[in-house]
Amino acid sequence: MKIELAENYGFCFGVKRAIKIAEDNQNAATYGPLIHNSKEIARLEKDFKVGLTDDYKIFKAGDKAIVRTHGIQKQELQELKDKGVNVVDATCPYVTKPQEIAQEMSEKGYSVVIFGDDEHPEIKGVKSYATHGALVVTSPEELEGVKLHEKIALIAQTTRKVEDYMKVANYLIPRYKEVRVFNTICNATFENQDAVRKLSKKADIMLIIGGKNSSNTKQLFKISQENCQNSYHIEDEKDLDFSWFDNKNLCGISAGASTPDWIIQNVIDNIKSKIS
Amino acid sequence: MKIELAENYGFCFGVKRAIKIAEDNQNAATYGPLIHNSKEIARLEKDFKVGLTDDYKIFKAGDKAIVRTHGIQKQELQELKDKGVNVVDATCPYVTKPQEIAQEMSEKGYSVVIFGDDEHPEIKGVKSYATHGALVVTSPEELEGVKLHEKIALIAQTTRKVEDYMKVANYLIPRYKEVRVFNTICNATFENQDAVRKLSKKADIMLIIGGKNSSNTKQLFKISQENCQNSYHIEDEKDLDFSWFDNKNLCGISAGASTPDWIIQNVIDNIKSKIS
Repeated sequence: MKIELAENYGFCFGVKRAIKIAEDNQNAATYGPLIHNSKEIARLEKDFKVGLTDDYKIFKAGDKAIVRTHGIQKQELQELKDKGVNVVDATCPYVTKPQEIAQEMSEKGYSVVIFGDDEHPEIKGVKSYATHGALVVTSPEELEGVKLHEKIALIAQTTRKVEDYMKVANYLIPRYKEVRVFNTICNATFENQDAVRKLSKKADIMLIIGGKNSSNTKQLFKISQENCQNSYHIEDEKDLDFSWFDNKNLCGISAGASTPDWIIQNVIDNIKSKIS
Repeated sequence: MKIELAENYGFCFGVKRAIKIAEDNQNAATYGPLIHNSKEIARLEKDFKVGLTDDYKIFKAGDKAIVRTHGIQKQELQELKDKGVNVVDATCPYVTKPQEIAQEMSEKGYSVVIFGDDEHPEIKGVKSYATHGALVVTSPEELEGVKLHEKIALIAQTTRKVEDYMKVANYLIPRYKEVRVFNTICNATFENQDAVRKLSKKADIMLIIGGKNSSNTKQLFKISQENCQNSYHIEDEKDLDFSWFDNKNLCGISAGASTPDWIIQNVIDNIKSKIS
């Protein structure tokens, strides 16, 4: 079995930065998972005493709270600071940017439209910065019949596909006086997506490694499926089914932006040990 | 022969306004044709003593100069004012707007990209307001290899097709941090285009009446040709060839934004007098 890694895969700049911040801040807790990978979170807890909570209200004055890469809501951040909690911001700078844009555009009187998932922590955070509210959509259909201002600011979730973003932009542009399209989609996401597209066209089997709730991993998996019908989304080596490899020659591997290298290496070692 | 006029055709708001201004300012001259229709210009000269010149330098202090609907270049306007010429501005407000946008965006550090015809007076005017220059393109291909700032302001010639404008927007958006798309395409153009599209689908013969150098008339003609192979671009009744009407039942008529109603009526009267 020949194994080939995608030209770009795995951890992005923001995630590497957040893990470094967590490692440097022992005896802290993150509000919400720091990254979308339960294995890495367990490692940080075990080796660096960085815990995890889903309730920011438990932080008390003097506690150390690490803000996750996806960011948190403006009001929550303010409450933590007001309470005297020691806030360590690991929000990815590529997420801080759309938060700032949402606030500035909303204050300037633009209708803020966010292309992304209303339930995603990044989007909950970005939306909270739009002082006068924002509309979150995943497709142009959701904009039909909606009344917006003449001037629109359009922002995308960092991990979305640019093609889908363009559909929303293309709906808005002919219908409004000004549409200010901010390209907030992260380059790392692009690069990982381009590499998976390329590799999945020649591989017999594709493994996409990443958390089941990681949207950028799901995107990689979707692109892979378009080109290679034997595509599998796995969290780690335990999800492997070795019958997948029957009569296959080339196994392509990619991983989501929250997947640490040590998990990828475990998958490769496992395949090599079982498949000749 | 059944004759049907398009639901929307002919003079737009800006042209009606400019003609009113000219009629109210006798003994003046326009710098460049006020509108793209030589017949209407001849009428204004005959009935209202509004002349025409192609050289703005001939205006002297105290002369009355009418600025055409398409606008003129910023520097030329300044020279006229500095010289003490009495400038009467008949620039269409829908053209003044992109001029203002070009200036504001250029001064704010945006790269200004104008979708339109470099040689069209409207575009020469709009471009002249971009303090730090602007790039004029008619297709995305012209943007390949061009180095622009991270932030782009995109402006369209008022008479262009929105579908073509979107192609330029779609090229820029994924490649730059921010693309501010101003929908400067005029609604009147849209409405006339939509109406010609509808009518040309059912007519046996289509007549598009307007100046041979009027770009919005040429656009209407292009749309008409896509749906009706017997489409003709005529300037007035003198261009009619009655053999066109052989074995035809429904004649659809539309006219460019610079075509006065009296020319359209002459065409209709002529057909009715010759064809039963």
